[in-house]
Amino acid sequence: MLGASGYAGRELCALILDHPELVLAFATANEQRGARARIGRHTIEFSATESARLGDAALVFSALPHGTSKEWIARARDAGARAVDLSADLRPGNGCEGIPYGLTELSREQVRNAPLVSNPGCYPTSILTALAPLFARDLVADDCPIVIDAASGVTGAGNSPKRELLFAEVADDYRAYGFSDGTGNVHRHLREMRAVAESLGCAADLVFTPHLLPVARGILATMTVTLRAPIQGETLTPWRATYAGERFIELVDEPPTLRDVVHRNVVRIAAMPLAGTRRPTLLVLSAIDNLVKGAAGQALQNANLMLGLEEAAGLPS
Amino acid sequence: MLGASGYAGRELCALILDHPELVLAFATANEQRGARARIGRHTIEFSATESARLGDAALVFSALPHGTSKEWIARARDAGARAVDLSADLRPGNGCEGIPYGLTELSREQVRNAPLVSNPGCYPTSILTALAPLFARDLVADDCPIVIDAASGVTGAGNSPKRELLFAEVADDYRAYGFSDGTGNVHRHLREMRAVAESLGCAADLVFTPHLLPVARGILATMTVTLRAPIQGETLTPWRATYAGERFIELVDEPPTLRDVVHRNVVRIAAMPLAGTRRPTLLVLSAIDNLVKGAAGQALQNANLMLGLEEAAGLPS
Amino acid sequence: MLGASGYAGRELCALILDHPELVLAFATANEQRGARARIGRHTIEFSATESARLGDAALVFSALPHGTSKEWIARARDAGARAVDLSADLRPGNGCEGIPYGLTELSREQVRNAPLVSNPGCYPTSILTALAPLFARDLVADDCPIVIDAASGVTGAGNSPKRELLFAEVADDYRAYGFSDGTGNVHRHLREMRAVAESLGCAADLVFTPHLLPVARGILATMTVTLRAPIQGETLTPWRATYAGERFIELVDEPPTLRDVVHRNVVRIAAMPLAGTRRPTLLVLSAIDNLVKGAAGQALQNANLMLGLEEAAGLPS
Amino acid sequence: MLGASGYAGRELCALILDHPELVLAFATANEQRGARARIGRHTIEFSATESARLGDAALVFSALPHGTSKEWIARARDAGARAVDLSADLRPGNGCEGIPYGLTELSREQVRNAPLVSNPGCYPTSILTALAPLFARDLVADDCPIVIDAASGVTGAGNSPKRELLFAEVADDYRAYGFSDGTGNVHRHLREMRAVAESLGCAADLVFTPHLLPVARGILATMTVTLRAPIQGETLTPWRATYAGERFIELVDEPPTLRDVVHRNVVRIAAMPLAGTRRPTLLVLSAIDNLVKGAAGQALQNANLMLGLEEAAGLPS
Repeated sequence: MLGASGYAGRELCALILDHPELVLAFATANEQRGARARIGRHTIEFSATESARLGDAALVFSALPHGTSKEWIARARDAGARAVDLSADLRPGNGCEGIPYGLTELSREQVRNAPLVSNPGCYPTSILTALAPLFARDLVADDCPIVIDAASGVTGAGNSPKRELLFAEVADDYRAYGFSDGTGNVHRHLREMRAVAESLGCAADLVFTPHLLPVARGILATMTVTLRAPIQGETLTPWRATYAGERFIELVDEPPTLRDVVHRNVVRIAAMPLAGTRRPTLLVLSAIDNLVKGAAGQALQNANLMLGLEEAAGLPS
Repeated sequence: MLGASGYAGRELCALILDHPELVLAFATANEQRGARARIGRHTIEFSATESARLGDAALVFSALPHGTSKEWIARARDAGARAVDLSADLRPGNGCEGIPYGLTELSREQVRNAPLVSNPGCYPTSILTALAPLFARDLVADDCPIVIDAASGVTGAGNSPKRELLFAEVADDYRAYGFSDGTGNVHRHLREMRAVAESLGCAADLVFTPHLLPVARGILATMTVTLRAPIQGETLTPWRATYAGERFIELVDEPPTLRDVVHRNVVRIAAMPLAGTRRPTLLVLSAIDNLVKGAAGQALQNANLMLGLEEAAGLPS
Repeated sequence: MLGASGYAGRELCALILDHPELVLAFATANEQRGARARIGRHTIEFSATESARLGDAALVFSALPHGTSKEWIARARDAGARAVDLSADLRPGNGCEGIPYGLTELSREQVRNAPLVSNPGCYPTSILTALAPLFARDLVADDCPIVIDAASGVTGAGNSPKRELLFAEVADDYRAYGFSDGTGNVHRHLREMRAVAESLGCAADLVFTPHLLPVARGILATMTVTLRAPIQGETLTPWRATYAGERFIELVDEPPTLRDVVHRNVVRIAAMPLAGTRRPTLLVLSAIDNLVKGAAGQALQNANLMLGLEEAAGLPS
Repeated sequence: MLGASGYAGRELCALILDHPELVLAFATANEQRGARARIGRHTIEFSATESARLGDAALVFSALPHGTSKEWIARARDAGARAVDLSADLRPGNGCEGIPYGLTELSREQVRNAPLVSNPGCYPTSILTALAPLFARDLVADDCPIVIDAASGVTGAGNSPKRELLFAEVADDYRAYGFSDGTGNVHRHLREMRAVAESLGCAADLVFTPHLLPVARGILATMTVTLRAPIQGETLTPWRATYAGERFIELVDEPPTLRDVVHRNVVRIAAMPLAGTRRPTLLVLSAIDNLVKGAAGQALQNANLMLGLEEAAGLPS
């Protein structure tokens, strides 16, 4: 595990430590090297990234910062290890196509036995998993944007000490942030989502506004979609078709909430038609734990497939 | 003050008690009649609604429950009092047109010296104030919906003891609620907003998804609007034109947050074009305190106008 | 399970549903009978208490309200079932001595194979477990009070819808409550603690002030104890002696926090001498999850012993 | 205003900006010099501390860091300005006796017209104001400690970006911190309290355990005091005698809560005898806003007296 001191890194260490088949070979954290961290019942010691014996690991996870991770993934591969990159470095839309993108339920066959997988961002996991069944059936009108408003707990912003993430700044507040602006500066996750959505057949524009919630964990995405035509029969039909038998996808009739999903490796999805509009309009809601299905859990799910293990091994559902 | 024990009622009592010109004649709360409540430095005693001497008041505020308020407003009018109704009973879209609708900055002349005003809902105040300049200039494309996702603190749901509003249920959670569904059951505030938006010249569909935040106060509305054409010049130009000189409207370049507006009688608005879409798309954000500009503050602002007082008297800015 | 709809009841149902040896025979909740509740991955249906087939169960848990529980425990016993009472009805200090009191680590032999156990309150679990080693070694001066200030998350107050437990009332606040007053009205948990402390050899007065925290779960107890003489050697020595080998007792050098213990069946304890006082004074801190070690977890720990199962079966550590 | 960018500094700038008689001459913040900050309706620009024209100000407030403040206070005095030091540098118990200590209600005559005042810490303000009436009447037994457990919102820890103050670390948690330990390292506020308590006639030991609350503002202190003899008559009699006519001291029968005092320059105090103890034991509770009466508000209250202004000018009650 490279980059083990952040929230996603710790979550992944915890999952590995309780995994029935895996052993944690090393956990690096340059700034905290030598420090001990309690992770659940376990205590680990962080080592320097440089000292990691990459070749000793069957599989290397990297949760290093964006920009840094790429190089270490290359070193791990050179040392003969498989690798899962939790950073944005190798994701679609960031100039690095062709590497299997581990939105597991949608790309299981590419992930299985792959030597290297790029793990999706937390927002994209929540949003693309929820929208993919509409793309697959070409249900989306292409002349109106798909409007995505999403809200995330603060662990999504990492644990670097920044003033705007202090308790006294975040509590009792709620804000939009990091949205694309007129200068062409588009949120990293939006680039990722647009690239993947296009590859899944989406011809509509995606617009995306993330918000910061005064909670530690969880993402709720609220998606408004103009349809070509109303969905016939039960609204969830496209999702039931795409995700039949998937244990980590939960299709529900009630709006999903953060509480339903925290500490679990699931995406929970609801969909309902909106009333009183001239064109058929659908509300799609999806919730995940940003640190589990949105990061460490999905990374482990992918690793299980890459190593030929039981896909659900060590994952909290 | 009729219906003084809820969050909006108490907020309004507090404002009246500190008002330089007004005196609180009575504060009714049937279920708590006889009880004393501390409101800031003051202590008031709740009386029964039946015992209110409506004719003794120059102006009667009602924050009685929806459905009940209408009758008491009629009684107050019969007794010769002017009245401001904070309930939904007399608002547009609820079958009761023709009564001045107190979105103050947009209907100041109808409110001034009116005998009766219907005070807007909290969501409509936040949303319609923010969208009106686009309607006034006919900037909105009419073939895509205006997508409104909004999040409110829990005081917006009142202070009746309901299990789903308990601390242990709301904390650490976030959820969509009360949205319109396929059966034609549309949120009360959406009916109100559609009726008013149409009267303001909006031809596009409005869709609206409210969410419940784990905070006590504040509303943030996130609105995505497809435009007929990009706004020329500075994006805020339409708002600067509509709201020139308005002391309770704040136009800002940074995304507004709850912290900026709580305990203040303001609407804070930002607007910015979104990048990477084929059609010009605008993000509009607005924030209010749901109990102040979204209820008690605006009610007092309207009352000041009705009584010929200084519009800002007794209002926290 | 009798009284399954409260927070402790649900927590216990969840533990039973995931227990390797136990099966949930019924879950009663009179007011919600017929309703379905999602508990983790499981869905259960509440039945009426009257309809519970008590004789079918090997062991009956009751989390019925104080005052009501006693009668149902008697019925369960008459029907031949063992029973664990989570209410206060059968606890020491409440007029009902002689029944094994399930502070497990201190009364394991009385609990093992007992037909009936009274499960301790949450505050007493946290506090008595932490103080017992001092009593056992007669270290406490008897002319000064043991001062216990404790703070609990709101699930300790149950999930009945009361106005003072609404999110908007509890958030951003902190208060002392339910303390004994001059009229002789002493908190139920204090009576329980005084009775048990005396039985453990304590001759000092206990004073106790509980506080309500704006968090969902967890208790932290802060205890200040005047000692007969300073503890020789390492401060934690008395605790290490009393709790050697106990897997659910964690003795630590750093002050324990709620985060360390939530969702776990442990008591975490620290002790440190205070500086600058003329008499030797000790600070003892202990933290538990009020719903786990403070209620459902300890109830299951006791049940495991009563049934001759592995003591830790089904318990999250 | 020197050191204007912290929470107390900003609070004091806001009070000065709204003060009827004072003008904010400068607001320094070395690390943020040149930056603009919105404070309520106002926008200020931080300047470098070195550039402050100390001689232009009638009175200089310093909220510079402990250790740094002392030197700048000396420079301000040399330049002919009066000064209020909000840091710990000049407080009793920190090696710097003889300077008027601005616990206003207890030292009004020393503060009035003084050229220099040391402003008390937030905990000492809450605690000493509540205990002083007991010291004044010699009611406290001297052979048992006065046990003080107090809990503070996180703004008490300042706004430097530290990992342990991040939202995701503080939310849902509660912890004791900074307590005196066996090595003789005593909390700075405890040294201050012991020195002042002794000067007020207290012969008992003070022990003090502060805790960190997951709220932004407010302190609640819970004090358990062994008395020489029960208080005759109404328990609050000593307080009513000491604080007759004080507008910023509120004596109440119900336990005070944070909500009662935030954003207000008051100390709210309750006292009640505890039942079931052999020696007379009193519980004293006091609540303040740590940034107002615990810092900026009391600093301004002192400044008003120093300058011969109305004591309450510009203070929120």
